[in-house]
Amino acid sequence: MNNPFLVEVARGALVESRHRGSVSVVDADGAAVLSLGDVDRRVFPRSAVKALQAMPLVESGIAEAYALTDEEIALACASHSGEPEHVAAAQSMLAKAGLDEGCLECGVHWPMGEAANRALAAQGQGPSALHNNCSGKHAGFICLACGMNEDPTGYVAAEHPVQRRVREALEDLTGACHTQEKGGIDGCSIPTYAIPLPSLAFGFARFGAGAGLSRESQAAAERIRRAVARHPFMVAGTGRFDTRLMEILRERAFVKTGAEGVYCAALPELGFGIALKAEDGNGRAAEAMMAALVLRFLRLGEERAAVEALAQPVLRNWNGIEVGQVRVSPDLVG
Amino acid sequence: MNNPFLVEVARGALVESRHRGSVSVVDADGAAVLSLGDVDRRVFPRSAVKALQAMPLVESGIAEAYALTDEEIALACASHSGEPEHVAAAQSMLAKAGLDEGCLECGVHWPMGEAANRALAAQGQGPSALHNNCSGKHAGFICLACGMNEDPTGYVAAEHPVQRRVREALEDLTGACHTQEKGGIDGCSIPTYAIPLPSLAFGFARFGAGAGLSRESQAAAERIRRAVARHPFMVAGTGRFDTRLMEILRERAFVKTGAEGVYCAALPELGFGIALKAEDGNGRAAEAMMAALVLRFLRLGEERAAVEALAQPVLRNWNGIEVGQVRVSPDLVG
Repeated sequence: MNNPFLVEVARGALVESRHRGSVSVVDADGAAVLSLGDVDRRVFPRSAVKALQAMPLVESGIAEAYALTDEEIALACASHSGEPEHVAAAQSMLAKAGLDEGCLECGVHWPMGEAANRALAAQGQGPSALHNNCSGKHAGFICLACGMNEDPTGYVAAEHPVQRRVREALEDLTGACHTQEKGGIDGCSIPTYAIPLPSLAFGFARFGAGAGLSRESQAAAERIRRAVARHPFMVAGTGRFDTRLMEILRERAFVKTGAEGVYCAALPELGFGIALKAEDGNGRAAEAMMAALVLRFLRLGEERAAVEALAQPVLRNWNGIEVGQVRVSPDLVG
Repeated sequence: MNNPFLVEVARGALVESRHRGSVSVVDADGAAVLSLGDVDRRVFPRSAVKALQAMPLVESGIAEAYALTDEEIALACASHSGEPEHVAAAQSMLAKAGLDEGCLECGVHWPMGEAANRALAAQGQGPSALHNNCSGKHAGFICLACGMNEDPTGYVAAEHPVQRRVREALEDLTGACHTQEKGGIDGCSIPTYAIPLPSLAFGFARFGAGAGLSRESQAAAERIRRAVARHPFMVAGTGRFDTRLMEILRERAFVKTGAEGVYCAALPELGFGIALKAEDGNGRAAEAMMAALVLRFLRLGEERAAVEALAQPVLRNWNGIEVGQVRVSPDLVG
């Protein structure tokens, strides 16, 4: 099955590039609300499921025991830009477990945020694992290990108690088996498991609505969604799509990007979960798709124009001249 | 017509993302050697035609009159990384025309090369138009204007004598009309004209083989190809695909990337020109496609392994662990 064109990028009067994709929107009972493209194909959710991966930390009471703040909970769900606030929060989480960045197993990269990247260079410094966009998730895993009285060493391995617990949480929420033959290694070295988009969307529908979850899981999901809605900067960073959209919509939409053009969302007031993938892995396409779906399903007032600008961004060149536009397809607009 | 899948990106045992594309390879008579996907669709060549855009500068004798070096000629064809050597050569070209960076109309951006970017920040400096990846092409345009006794001011406009002359050269080489309704504005503010891939490939076949060109044009094409083959660093930069491939193959393959997944090449010994586009605009796909086509058509000896590594690069995560691979389709391998 060919995935449909869902996003096009225009230059002048012509279409320069086109992105195909697949979309699944389901309700909290798992019933399909919208299905576009080949939704049966398994997709690696990558960082789009960080909020679901943070569930064990919160529902176990360990986040509470370590007195993690809302900013820190939000950072546990983040693909952050490595700005000073992100780095400080990751450090603080580790300190609460009595540890430091030496325990992080996510690897080192320069900050994703360009300004943070150059600011670090201007200080004559290099990056540490704290600047890795996944450092908050990893600090959360380390807190989870310590709270479970497990040695955090090797916490990225599929058979470490931390990853087993995280995998169980993902299986519970999505209803999809996370089998080793459908597994890969993520950018930060933890396992990632390919599952179909409707399962992923179902996990987010339940994360948003709490339907069918234990009382502890419901409370954990609510705590996580609220923490992110209060601190959307912590989950991404300056100018980033997730931060901008949630600064506009707060608790009405939980959205999270993943590498290779994956996006997930929960729309709690409707009980809907959304999962999408740009076939080619492109992030600009995935962002436009997500903004279009939010516009399609949520009744928006004066926030509408700001979300529309995220769905169909104007492209400007280095002189600020308008040269093109990203456009979403009528199939997405509905 | 659906473009075929030409590149896939695997993670673990699964395919994570897939890229479709179109390819045209033609000989110096314009006869099709290989055609994949929708090659009739017009494509903006963007920076992939910089070498053709540099033809008027050289064939007019103006490059010679200003004593432009091989490094500077190569820079006139470059999408460079903004490394110190690139910046110095652009400055030198402008100085030879009695001008400086104040004349550049390409806009300002931080160096494309990460190390150059951070080195500049570490020096407490910001970027100038010299760091723009197109500054060499623009310095060439300014030399052309001065050599033509034209005021360089406004040299980026479609109706400035410089852009008219460049457009004529592109029409001569490719045989395709460059009409305003198929025009767009490029990232550096000059016009870019969408033409079909076979026309673009034909232009590069003739640029490589010299067939059907005037003696001045033949000599100019040869000078440009040789300058780039001698200085592949100047046309891109540290670690970049064009630089790496031409460091391996020198005069056997002239290759040039363009934005939005376009790539062009000339294989002079065969008289072939290549033009390709990743449907989604993706650069990793376009690079893999180009390397696969070079492998398909050129008889390679001990260089083969190095080019194969460019066609099917292994993907490693932040800890250096192998997590996947880019793979080209059998349609490309032939």
